[in-house]
Amino acid sequence: MKDTADRADWAELLICRTCRRGGEVCADGRRPGEVLHEALSGQALPEGLTLRAVECLQNCEGGCTVALRGADRWTYVYGNLHEADHAEMLADGAARYLATPDGLIPWRERPDHFKKNCIARIPPLEAAK
Amino acid sequence: MKDTADRADWAELLICRTCRRGGEVCADGRRPGEVLHEALSGQALPEGLTLRAVECLQNCEGGCTVALRGADRWTYVYGNLHEADHAEMLADGAARYLATPDGLIPWRERPDHFKKNCIARIPPLEAAK
Repeated sequence: MKDTADRADWAELLICRTCRRGGEVCADGRRPGEVLHEALSGQALPEGLTLRAVECLQNCEGGCTVALRGADRWTYVYGNLHEADHAEMLADGAARYLATPDGLIPWRERPDHFKKNCIARIPPLEAAK
Repeated sequence: MKDTADRADWAELLICRTCRRGGEVCADGRRPGEVLHEALSGQALPEGLTLRAVECLQNCEGGCTVALRGADRWTYVYGNLHEADHAEMLADGAARYLATPDGLIPWRERPDHFKKNCIARIPPLEAAK
């Protein structure tokens, strides 16, 4: 699988499936993070993007939470996502992320939600270049 | 450098040098993040740890901010650090992080500051295993 993870046209969208948005659960008893993952699974996603449900990104007060990452790219963590409103925006943002060589989407091209709800970012592993 | 980044006994402590802790600068006019980086540079660090000053981890309201990461390890972002108080704790926490195979320090062994000030965490790149 190493080749896949090293590919420049590959990125991952991690969705915290345990996110509860301050304790809330959805009407059907599921966690909002799980529903967001399902909503994204039904969304048209850009080629090269892998969707991955993860257990906890530890932004518990500011969920739902996702992270975008890829080889030689900046990793971004975004919070305050809503399972009913943000699947399409996330698919669009992931496509813009994939369209860059380093994960740095030009400011004006970023979805508004990305501009206002970035929890943290982490630079690429330069030592691995 | 690829071999270095892939080594199991290698980890990086990234320090946001632009952190201002809500607008504050230090008495000498420097940014708290820069002073924290300097304090860590003068600290005894565990073998295998690389210290790296970075431009912005985008946890600007909750600085100073650092990240711990390594090959096949969880990445952790920690905030609310003080340049005068936390260099020794960070060196100790980094040693505990390095002592694990996956970056998951057992809860009871985590420095209190790590328990209370984790901004986000990101799982290892499983696809690259």
